[in-house]
Amino acid sequence: MSRARTAAFLGMSLDGCIAGPQDELDWLGRQGGPPEDHGFEPFLAGVDLVLMGRRTWDVVRAFPSWPYGEKPVAVLTHRPGEARHGERFLAGEPAEVLQRLEAGGARRIYLDGGAVVSQFLAAGLLDELTISVLPVVLGAGIRLFQETGPERWLQLREHRAWPSGLVQLRYAAPDRSLGR
Amino acid sequence: MSRARTAAFLGMSLDGCIAGPQDELDWLGRQGGPPEDHGFEPFLAGVDLVLMGRRTWDVVRAFPSWPYGEKPVAVLTHRPGEARHGERFLAGEPAEVLQRLEAGGARRIYLDGGAVVSQFLAAGLLDELTISVLPVVLGAGIRLFQETGPERWLQLREHRAWPSGLVQLRYAAPDRSLGR
Repeated sequence: MSRARTAAFLGMSLDGCIAGPQDELDWLGRQGGPPEDHGFEPFLAGVDLVLMGRRTWDVVRAFPSWPYGEKPVAVLTHRPGEARHGERFLAGEPAEVLQRLEAGGARRIYLDGGAVVSQFLAAGLLDELTISVLPVVLGAGIRLFQETGPERWLQLREHRAWPSGLVQLRYAAPDRSLGR
Repeated sequence: MSRARTAAFLGMSLDGCIAGPQDELDWLGRQGGPPEDHGFEPFLAGVDLVLMGRRTWDVVRAFPSWPYGEKPVAVLTHRPGEARHGERFLAGEPAEVLQRLEAGGARRIYLDGGAVVSQFLAAGLLDELTISVLPVVLGAGIRLFQETGPERWLQLREHRAWPSGLVQLRYAAPDRSLGR
């Protein structure tokens, strides 16, 4: 059996940030104009587990509403917390974590947050990456790409712009993707 | 008379780098496939002066061929060097530099290099920005966006993808552009 596939879906500023310096996300909705559907719902519907880092979990669980619906969620951390949405906590290197999630039946895994995405990319275990580039230079913030290891080329699969000026870019690792 | 307009035209990795850690630019041509025309020549033809920082000048003057043709070139530095292509050297804050270049007759100015682009962006004096996003995560390097000041929103004017997976995004500061 081939290994499970991994995909990320993130908003990013032109200067590479996914959040402000204090994890602020309000800028993601600041440009005004009518609401736009950037495809998060079908993306989420296409995965069977969400894996995120501790920092992302800390930010997301403070949201007024939990964005992952009923999807199983795993948090990569050495400091387990109080699960309010059935989250499980685990720690380990990407390859080992992936094997454990596969053993639990996960076949398509949504990686959320800069740390986890960067770790899996560095390990050669990020298969698909959708980045929505907002037309803003934040000036400071949390970067999507952190310790990503050696130079890594991806394949552009799709690009699309919205009236707000958001450009969504979908990449796959060579010969890997969720097969959508 | 309205002030001169400024525009930048750069290649950038997905992780926001315009060069490797040692100013390497070889990755810009590393993806293979047939050569592509990303529009640099018409861009260059549309400006009447090139302004760059000292670091960019040090990199570019080591190229086998000078990429700016007969265009006047100004280098922003406190350490003038030996001009081999008629470069002039000047120092100062963006607004002051812009005024001096305007006084010399420049109306459309090409800003090259991360430092100068970032300084002019921070000063609210970058009018147009064309970024060619290559489908690569470099892992380390010189970032395009450095000290860029407060959050700044741009307007997307154009987006286009090439077979190599390069996506070119053209932005303008609100209500500013070269008028092309």
